Amino acid sequence: MNSNFQIDGDRLWAMLMDIARIGATPKGGVCRLALTDVDARGRAWFRERCEKIGLEVRTDAVGNQFARLEGSSAELPPVLIGSHLDSQPTGGKFDGVYGVLAGIEVAQVLTERAITPKRSLEIVNWTNEEGSRFLPVMAGSGVFAGVHTLADVLAQKDKDGIGFGDALNAISAAETYDAGDDVDAYFEVHIEQGPVLEAAAETIGVVTGALGQRWFNCTVTGFEAHAGPTPMSLRRDALQAACAIVTEIDAVGRIHDDSRSTVGMIECWPNSRNTIPGTVSFSVDLRHSSDEGLDQMVERFQAMLDLIKEMRNVEIAVEQTNDWPACQFDAQCVALVREAAIQSGSKWRDMVSGAGHDAVNLAKIAPTAMIFVPCRDGISHNEIEDAKAEDLTAGANVLLSAVWARLNRDLV
Amino acid sequence: MNSNFQIDGDRLWAMLMDIARIGATPKGGVCRLALTDVDARGRAWFRERCEKIGLEVRTDAVGNQFARLEGSSAELPPVLIGSHLDSQPTGGKFDGVYGVLAGIEVAQVLTERAITPKRSLEIVNWTNEEGSRFLPVMAGSGVFAGVHTLADVLAQKDKDGIGFGDALNAISAAETYDAGDDVDAYFEVHIEQGPVLEAAAETIGVVTGALGQRWFNCTVTGFEAHAGPTPMSLRRDALQAACAIVTEIDAVGRIHDDSRSTVGMIECWPNSRNTIPGTVSFSVDLRHSSDEGLDQMVERFQAMLDLIKEMRNVEIAVEQTNDWPACQFDAQCVALVREAAIQSGSKWRDMVSGAGHDAVNLAKIAPTAMIFVPCRDGISHNEIEDAKAEDLTAGANVLLSAVWARLNRDLV
Repeated sequence: MNSNFQIDGDRLWAMLMDIARIGATPKGGVCRLALTDVDARGRAWFRERCEKIGLEVRTDAVGNQFARLEGSSAELPPVLIGSHLDSQPTGGKFDGVYGVLAGIEVAQVLTERAITPKRSLEIVNWTNEEGSRFLPVMAGSGVFAGVHTLADVLAQKDKDGIGFGDALNAISAAETYDAGDDVDAYFEVHIEQGPVLEAAAETIGVVTGALGQRWFNCTVTGFEAHAGPTPMSLRRDALQAACAIVTEIDAVGRIHDDSRSTVGMIECWPNSRNTIPGTVSFSVDLRHSSDEGLDQMVERFQAMLDLIKEMRNVEIAVEQTNDWPACQFDAQCVALVREAAIQSGSKWRDMVSGAGHDAVNLAKIAPTAMIFVPCRDGISHNEIEDAKAEDLTAGANVLLSAVWARLNRDLV
Repeated sequence: MNSNFQIDGDRLWAMLMDIARIGATPKGGVCRLALTDVDARGRAWFRERCEKIGLEVRTDAVGNQFARLEGSSAELPPVLIGSHLDSQPTGGKFDGVYGVLAGIEVAQVLTERAITPKRSLEIVNWTNEEGSRFLPVMAGSGVFAGVHTLADVLAQKDKDGIGFGDALNAISAAETYDAGDDVDAYFEVHIEQGPVLEAAAETIGVVTGALGQRWFNCTVTGFEAHAGPTPMSLRRDALQAACAIVTEIDAVGRIHDDSRSTVGMIECWPNSRNTIPGTVSFSVDLRHSSDEGLDQMVERFQAMLDLIKEMRNVEIAVEQTNDWPACQFDAQCVALVREAAIQSGSKWRDMVSGAGHDAVNLAKIAPTAMIFVPCRDGISHNEIEDAKAEDLTAGANVLLSAVWARLNRDLV
């Protein structure tokens, strides 16, 4: 393809603003929870927009939508571009949506110039990435990649007891298309959801993989007592023990450039100002770019529990709730993204995704890469989520270049 | 009085178990919230029990009940023994009740032996000590001692919007008796509500005063962000900053034998496991036996806030919500208690009350002293609150000796 071929940034922005009206919130965000009527309108928008540019739209049994631009060698496995159109309850206009719409824009550049790539291109809207209404997160891509069974996902219930499968049927979002799992490559462009690119005044993140994650629930049990008459030396203060652990967890997160640790949730009982806390529970979220690094973090976190137990005369229970291994994206696909970033003249860096994305599921079955663009103040999952049109355009152009190269590469 | 005169421990225990049936809870505790129908039954029980032994019962405008045994010099200011019959929502059988019933038992020892003391003796049931339904705590004794105005207290509302005054009227708990504030002395016996006496295998606490208290609300404001994509170095984690403060507050509580510090309450927003906390608020309760000591504690607590603000790049707001000065009880009354403890042969110690009691209000207008007895595991404000009959008997005997000496002392 002629390197002058570019996506239409204004058209992409107009698409983003158009679909943002579906589920728009008063504060400028979007509430488009998976498999609601609002989500159904988003799906209809996707079908209509894709069909308008000549793509064939098909839907699988978990509601994933595939819009296909047929290649000249239609028998070859397709290249996929995807992300998701569902949102958090108080979500923004860009998280997920940008990746799907950038894909549509890439396809439109090809269709309107009547360019047929060698391989077919499919733009995918994965069902229920956010996990806000139904668990698991990244459900649609998880079923596609064999991470979850269809039956398990369909059996999930939301907080009102409505089943995933029933919700799918209620909005007629499931069909019988079997997309198979023979995928040549998967690309996803996404806002960074973090502050790194913005802080460094860079436009393109070449995403080389995703941090592994291990999640824990900790419960500290001490002894509830009256704050006045109980001397410091006779206390078994669950909150003081918890705060010592929380402080240590912060240090654990600093062992490496690509390590993170977060205590996001804490609850205290009886939570009365003049009662020494008897029980405190909190969450632990450890992330690292390598599984060995995660092992080290967990080891260090657990090593100090005995000391704190003894010092504070409390019991500490730790339960692991999740274990997602670190993910390395495909070297060749990442190289295509990096080359496209270099050619674009944008400032760029290699980086690791701190969050999970559908791409992490796809990486299990196909060569995968991701592209990040900055978002304002690193904010996402928030109605004030924002991104610059020029950055979104730059990211979509890198996507176009990398995908075009992959679509037409020689067979190995 | 002959030193062989003793209270009847079995009768005292029987009284305690009898009134415990009023508002009894399935778990063996008591729910007798101030100015409820259950409290009204407790008040009727008090009146009947006191009248039965020949005391005259009168009630003032805030519902405090005074049961008088007339002395031979009835023109002299009376000696008061008091505490409260209201309880926490999940309270025990001894907190407050013991002090009132020990007073009744002391009076009964005198009446049944037809002994008339020089001064009059009044047994008092103070209204709403607990503050569970209506603030302020220690409301009845506070009005009596001029700490609060009657009008202010009557205007308080419970969480259902019912006024204190209306609740008083609804159970006809208020009358017009004006007890005046000319009190010769005030004595109160109470379970310790802490673990000190039990841990030392001692029976009598000679209470020399009460810790001063300063209460604060702290709010730390950082910046809410996604736990995955936000590097440690770019975080403004409100919970990490809060935990550093909480840890330092524990150290502040250890500057003196009679100092205490407690963070009993903590709340985190948005309290999501994979979001860096944006806001954390928590309570601070500092106590010390001297106001100068409290000044030092507050100074040290505040001194480290600037450092943590800078280290964690957060804002910290501190609001003081209460300031109760340290209280020293009357040296002569305390000496009477100590002498009685020595004479009783019980193991005893001087100690400072960590909690507030009606005695702290009374100390503002009259020579005051308190007596503590052990309670199991230091537990109170709990349905499993428990105390040994022998300890309760010992405490009531010390009360009898000290009060008898005060009732008959020579005029100064």
